[in-house]
Amino acid sequence: MLELYFAPGACSFVPHAGLEIIKAATGETFEPKLVKLHKAEHRTPAYLAMNPNGQVPVLVADGKPLNQIVAICDYLDRRFPKAGLLPTDAWARAQAMSQLAWLNNTAHPAFSHVFRPDAYAQTDAAKAEIKRIAAGNFHKCLERIQDWAKGASPFWFGAGLSFHDAYSFTLLRWGGHAGIDPGTLPGLKAYVERVMAAAPIAAALERERIKLDTFKAAA
Amino acid sequence: MLELYFAPGACSFVPHAGLEIIKAATGETFEPKLVKLHKAEHRTPAYLAMNPNGQVPVLVADGKPLNQIVAICDYLDRRFPKAGLLPTDAWARAQAMSQLAWLNNTAHPAFSHVFRPDAYAQTDAAKAEIKRIAAGNFHKCLERIQDWAKGASPFWFGAGLSFHDAYSFTLLRWGGHAGIDPGTLPGLKAYVERVMAAAPIAAALERERIKLDTFKAAA
Repeated sequence: MLELYFAPGACSFVPHAGLEIIKAATGETFEPKLVKLHKAEHRTPAYLAMNPNGQVPVLVADGKPLNQIVAICDYLDRRFPKAGLLPTDAWARAQAMSQLAWLNNTAHPAFSHVFRPDAYAQTDAAKAEIKRIAAGNFHKCLERIQDWAKGASPFWFGAGLSFHDAYSFTLLRWGGHAGIDPGTLPGLKAYVERVMAAAPIAAALERERIKLDTFKAAA
Repeated sequence: MLELYFAPGACSFVPHAGLEIIKAATGETFEPKLVKLHKAEHRTPAYLAMNPNGQVPVLVADGKPLNQIVAICDYLDRRFPKAGLLPTDAWARAQAMSQLAWLNNTAHPAFSHVFRPDAYAQTDAAKAEIKRIAAGNFHKCLERIQDWAKGASPFWFGAGLSFHDAYSFTLLRWGGHAGIDPGTLPGLKAYVERVMAAAPIAAALERERIKLDTFKAAA
């Protein structure tokens, strides 16, 4: 019995997509649990007991909570090897974990500094500075992902979908919130659009009611 | 053939300690490669070809580089299961990976904001603000680690040493640079001192010529 606590558009999309890929490959279902961040549902005592960081995602497996995207992805892949989420060769898998760690600890927090500078400073001047510098860093991260995605045929690891495909979508979508037009990263955009069209990803997108439409051109 | 690119006192201590634990358990040796950050040896074209982020650690296994602490730890544990670095039960291992991911993507960058605020802002005022807020966040992280370490008997996972023990040392040692007296975290300090006294950890400490002596009381 698997449950996933997620918030629409958040990084919880990565395991959300993973669970849809597992469902398509194996028939194993999961219960999606929508967390309303605007109602502070991630700050309730019950939620904090599952995740003291008050973050999504949380995977609940057989009644027990597991936090952290990297750990959730590794766990899901090993529990459902038939879904083919990550390479099985030891070295290829190590490189896949390295990329996943980088997406999680470098690209992801670069965006967090743009989106929530109040976690790092208090005055408006300092927050504006943090946002400006982080937006540049985040753009470089998206360029690196675009470089990696050059080899995606059609997806990150070839024919099968994986967490890396879902994370690439999420990060490019977040780019719109950072003032980055996905059209300026055409290789990444074309790859992400292929990912979005795949049935398991489309199912997760529909449940979260999100698209790649966050960028608004300056008036 | 294993080589580890490391810098004294940096987070590369985590796989460095891991390799000493592997050596003690299995006899498998490694070649330590000291990277002189003050001579910008992590910025040379040859180094950037191994790690485009210009960071330590890099593990080179049979001539091929692997980046990212979480990926290196997972790879080393799976290659050398006899060293008993991580739990083998699937759920216990998932929780261990979750903790390792948190140490790496939450505790570690909290310190980075104290130590290198220039990565996030430019003006002295903004940098000072970032440092002050991050020092508070980092203290909370050390408190969480101290809570976890209450169960350490004698080490994080029991009798055997692991990456988590090494990371706990590194983060508490960094605390000194953030103005945090390890004496104010007596449970964590006592645990870390047990870790430091263990032979494989002591060997890595000696090679890096580091101790838990970074805190300087304000004059």
